[in-house]
Parts: sequence; structure tokens; C-alpha cells
Amino acid sequence: MITQAFTLPQRTLMGPGPSDVPPSVLAAMGQSLVGHLDPSFVAMMEEIKKMLRQVFLTENEMTFPISGTGSAGMEFCFTNLIEPGDEVVIGINGVFGTRMADVAARCGAEVVKVEVEWGHIIEPAQIAEALNGRSPKLVAIVHAETSTGALTPLGDISKLAHDAGALFLVDSVTSLGGCPVRVDDWGVDVIYSGTQKCLSCPPGLAPVSLSPRAMEAIAGRKTAVQSWYLDVNLLANYWGDGARVYHHTAPITMNYALHESLRLILDEGLENCWSRHETNHFRLKNGLAEIGLGIASQEGHQLWQLNAVTVPEGTDESGVRKALLNDHGIEIGPGLGPLAGKVWRIGLMGYSSSEENVDRVLAALKTLL
Amino acid sequence: MITQAFTLPQRTLMGPGPSDVPPSVLAAMGQSLVGHLDPSFVAMMEEIKKMLRQVFLTENEMTFPISGTGSAGMEFCFTNLIEPGDEVVIGINGVFGTRMADVAARCGAEVVKVEVEWGHIIEPAQIAEALNGRSPKLVAIVHAETSTGALTPLGDISKLAHDAGALFLVDSVTSLGGCPVRVDDWGVDVIYSGTQKCLSCPPGLAPVSLSPRAMEAIAGRKTAVQSWYLDVNLLANYWGDGARVYHHTAPITMNYALHESLRLILDEGLENCWSRHETNHFRLKNGLAEIGLGIASQEGHQLWQLNAVTVPEGTDESGVRKALLNDHGIEIGPGLGPLAGKVWRIGLMGYSSSEENVDRVLAALKTLL
Repeated sequence: MITQAFTLPQRTLMGPGPSDVPPSVLAAMGQSLVGHLDPSFVAMMEEIKKMLRQVFLTENEMTFPISGTGSAGMEFCFTNLIEPGDEVVIGINGVFGTRMADVAARCGAEVVKVEVEWGHIIEPAQIAEALNGRSPKLVAIVHAETSTGALTPLGDISKLAHDAGALFLVDSVTSLGGCPVRVDDWGVDVIYSGTQKCLSCPPGLAPVSLSPRAMEAIAGRKTAVQSWYLDVNLLANYWGDGARVYHHTAPITMNYALHESLRLILDEGLENCWSRHETNHFRLKNGLAEIGLGIASQEGHQLWQLNAVTVPEGTDESGVRKALLNDHGIEIGPGLGPLAGKVWRIGLMGYSSSEENVDRVLAALKTLL
Repeated sequence: MITQAFTLPQRTLMGPGPSDVPPSVLAAMGQSLVGHLDPSFVAMMEEIKKMLRQVFLTENEMTFPISGTGSAGMEFCFTNLIEPGDEVVIGINGVFGTRMADVAARCGAEVVKVEVEWGHIIEPAQIAEALNGRSPKLVAIVHAETSTGALTPLGDISKLAHDAGALFLVDSVTSLGGCPVRVDDWGVDVIYSGTQKCLSCPPGLAPVSLSPRAMEAIAGRKTAVQSWYLDVNLLANYWGDGARVYHHTAPITMNYALHESLRLILDEGLENCWSRHETNHFRLKNGLAEIGLGIASQEGHQLWQLNAVTVPEGTDESGVRKALLNDHGIEIGPGLGPLAGKVWRIGLMGYSSSEENVDRVLAALKTLL
């Protein structure tokens, strides 16, 4: 028998996500529940859709949060767009591109992989080469690779995709809110994100947006979407503007949290929010340089919100992380895959991206190295 | 620009779910976040698994919450068990049996439907007839049909399923915590639930449990599970006892809430919790009878936690619901499908199942009818 409520330690979250959650978002989540079809909740859903459009910089009608985490958002995008046999070109420069290829294959896609060294970006020329002689259904790119800290520019790749007759699909899990993500300007047709990175909301929802072109492609499907839970045709009637048709029960308190976290970002100003991430990244980068630490990902394409820091030769990589957690209350992340043991991942996402946190982690690293 | 945090009205939730959430569960959810691989969160995950086993009355190792709502739990079960061409016998006596057939078909199942009138239970003889000459992969039943208020006994159907060489799959979304659900005693192989009914936790997670027999069947699959997000082989490494392998990012605060809600149920005592639901059901049923209202579902098989109340001839069904909500702050639910306009659904689930709430809704109905 567990006789007492679980008490959690205080942490400062400076890993690859989740990020710290502002007090007013935690407070929003602690409000008592209304029903998921209550007029007040329906009004909140409408405001969430509006605010998500502002954060994604899109006019897309179909913009709403999926009731699952970021990876459910990824699966939502592929499962709705792909029919068995469809060809998909996927850029792979880290964990999440690798995951997209796995998800797409399970939807029956013929996957064409464009693989580059982890830490580097996907170059337009590499996509152009893969598209040569092909007319795939989708070209899919991870905008901000959380596993490596690289930010792939999207404009030219979008143009290549469209010229080849493909839809352009983007993973913005770590980019949204932390650096420019311009869905309409960049011609992104299908995009997903997560709540627990630069939106500073707990994990549990995956904002998505689909262009009219993407919705047209879905309307033209010859087979049913293989997932009932993620079928956009059903979700459109639940999240749409018309009479709501019961589908699943939305995670009510998670939506309370998302509403408040979006409100905070728009209150700060989306561009101010990006600038804050930029400023704190350079403060960290300069401070790291002073103690002899560099950033591993490709120069000129380093993420502001997630810094892959090269672990010096002979340093106990996991020992430093454990000491940061246990002695300083600061969580940072390890490297994954080929970067395991070689980098630390220091996140400066959303509410965690502050001058104070940068200075704290630098001071702590100084004592530990 | 939305300048203020969203303020929600106070409601008493007596519909088909969500139910009211106890203050300590709301408080748990408002705690600041730790990382999803933090040692403290890993310890919480272990306690959640243990408590879920106690609530499901099972020794099944594979017992944990899916990071989605109850319907994601349904999809998890079918997507892991079904391969294209597998035969499945599904009992259909309401919305959720109908949904199971849809989900199973999208997984490629050959669905054999056993359909009975809504409000009635699935009889063992009906399953026996469907199994005659068949050896399906699964027999699937909704234990407590939230759409009709009928509780189908499971023991005999489980035996029939096993005698036919099938696995037995159960929807316990509305039953778990509100009436006996004995996974091991009843030989249930695959079961899913939701958090927002008798567990009195907000919606957003789907507890599931799989027997060793079910895991063996999954191990023998010839094709990949079509969902990456719901693939139990990957989830087992994230929720398992060994070294945790990153899969998705668990909804951290939802797990805080589930931990506390399970703790409250076990602190009350699982059987005491069932009894409370039973007592309050009969208090409601008797009170309804006094004002001339009856329960629509099959006598002898009426749910304690969800009461489908027959709307009297000539009564404005939706008008009464709206007045309950707006003038009394009480949410009840409408009928669905063939029961639309014919019943109200009054939930007495989890924290909402109290003498006080029964008396409040009866008093309010008296003033409105």
C-alpha cells in the first residue's frame, strides 16, 4: 500500500525535453474539469486552434493538437497521407528522421532514404538527387534534429518537393516556438510538433497543421486510414467548426495547459520568443568556449534551443550528467546513436531558455570539469 | 491577442465521463516537471505498474498506461494482436463494440459481428453460435457499454473463446474501478481502460494489460505492428523493468495524476470502491423510480457507474440537460445512436459517485420535470 502522494524532486530541465513549465501553465492544469463537450471547453478548443495558427504562421483550417505525444503527431501525418505503395523521400540526419522512415514503412510506404552524417543538415542538392526521375507522394524533413542540434533550412527543399509533385512534410517538434517556423511562407503541407519543447507545456499533445493541398490528397485516398484514433477525417468532425461529433475524449487538462502556454508565447510575442532563444544560445556558446567546450553540430546551422556539446576526451560523460542532476538539480541529456558518449545535449527550450539557466549550467560545468 | 488565462466554470460531472477529479489528483498534476527518464519518474512508473496490476487484479507483467486516451488503448490492443487476414469475433451492443469492429477492420481483420439490441448484454450462446466452426484469433467484448449502461458478464464468454483457441480481449474503459474486473480469474488476455471514468483521473492515458499468452501471440507475428507509436515491442523496452530505452516522451503530468488516482482507490480499498458505486447506483435508481423514471438497459445487467435513464414521452431531452448544466452546474450525457433523444446518461463514476451528487441530481430533475 502506498500511503502518501508521490513527491517529486525540484529540477531545472535543460535536456532535450521536456522543458520547464511556467507556473501559470501548471496552475491552468490544476483547475477542476469540465466535460469535453462543455460549451466552455469547445470555446477553449477554438482559441487553441486560433493560437496554434498564429504560432505555426499559417492560415490552414486543419490546425489542432493530436491527443498523444509528438511521436503520435508524426504517426498522424504519415498514416493519413500514405497509402500502401506510395513513395516517400525522407531526409535522415538523426534519430527522428530514422523514426520517420520506420513509421512510413509501417504505413506501407516505399521509403527512399537521404542519409547524411549526424550533426549535419540535409542539403537541397541531396534531395534534388533523390528526386531525380521520381515523383513521390511526400518529401519529409526534420526541421530541428533534437538528437544532434542541427537546423535544416526548409525553403529550397520545399520548392524541390513541389516541383516534383510531392507534398512537403516537416517535423517541427523542437523548432516550433524556439526559432522561425513559417508554414505558409515555406509551403509546408503537413507539419507536426510536440508540446514539451519550446512551447513549455507538459508532454501529451502534438500540434499538427495540414494545408488544403494535403487535405485534398487525403480526400482522394482509395483505402481507409489504417489508424482509427489518428484518422483526420474523424478528427475533423471533433475539432472542426461545425457541430462537434464525438470521437475520442480529448485530454482536457492537457488542453488547459496548451491554451495557457500558447497564450504566454503570443503575449511575449512570437518573434521576441525566438530572439530570446537566439540570445541565450549565444550566451551559452560563448560561455562554453571560455571553458574549452565546443558545439558538435554543423557550424552555421546550430539550433538555438538544443546544443550538442562535445564531451572532452577522457571526461566521464555520464558522471558529469549525474552530478549535474544530483548536486545541482539540472537535467541535461546524453547523446544518442552514433553520438552516445560523445556529446551532452543542453536544451534551452521555452521557459528553460533564460540567462539565469545559462549561467547556472556554465557555473556547474566549471566546477565539474 | 488573448490577454488573460482561460477561466473555466465549476461543474459537477455526472455524464459518461470524464468524472470529477479529486483535489489531490489535481494537485499532483500541478507539480513541476521532472524529465521522463529522471530516476524519480522511473520510480513512479514502477509504482504505477504495480498499482495498475492491483486494480486490474492481475499478475500480468505487461501492465502499463498507453500515452493516449481510452480509444488509443483500444487501437493498441487490436493493432498489436491482429495481422491482415486474422479472424476476430466482436460483440456489438453499443458504440464501443461498433468502434472495435471499425478499428479491427483497419488492422486488416476479418470481422465476425455478434450484434444485439443496444441496452442488452451479449449472451454466451450468441458467442458460441458465432464460434461454431470457427477458430478466430480474438474474441472481443465491451464489458461495460458506456453508450447503453449494460454490463456483460465475462466468465462464460472467456471460456468459449479459449475453447475455440482464441484470445479474449476486453474493453474495461467504464468498468475498471467501478465494479469487479478480474483479469486473471476471468482469463482475460488483452484488456484496455481509460483514466477518466471510475479511476477519476483526467483523460489522457489508457491503462492496458496483456497476458503471457497474448505476448506469445505477438512474438509470433509475421508482420510488423502497423503502428510505431503503439507497438508493444517498443513500449516494453520503455515501460519494462530493465534498462529503459527511449521510445516516446511519456505525458509526465498525466502520470502524476494517474499515480495519485490509483493510490486513492487502493487506499479506499478496491472492493469498498466497487461497493460505493453499487450503493449510489441503487440510491439513484430508487430516487428515479419515485419521480417516475426508469433505467433503460437490461434489468439485472445495469451498470452501477452509468445509468441510461429513459426520457419520459414529451419531455424536451436536450432542454433538460442544458438546464441541468446552466442552472445547476451538473453535466449529464445524451443518448447516442439509436438511443439519441431516448435516454439521458447519468454517470456515477469514481469521485463523482457520492450520495451528495445522487441527491443533487435527483433534486434538480424534480424541479425540471
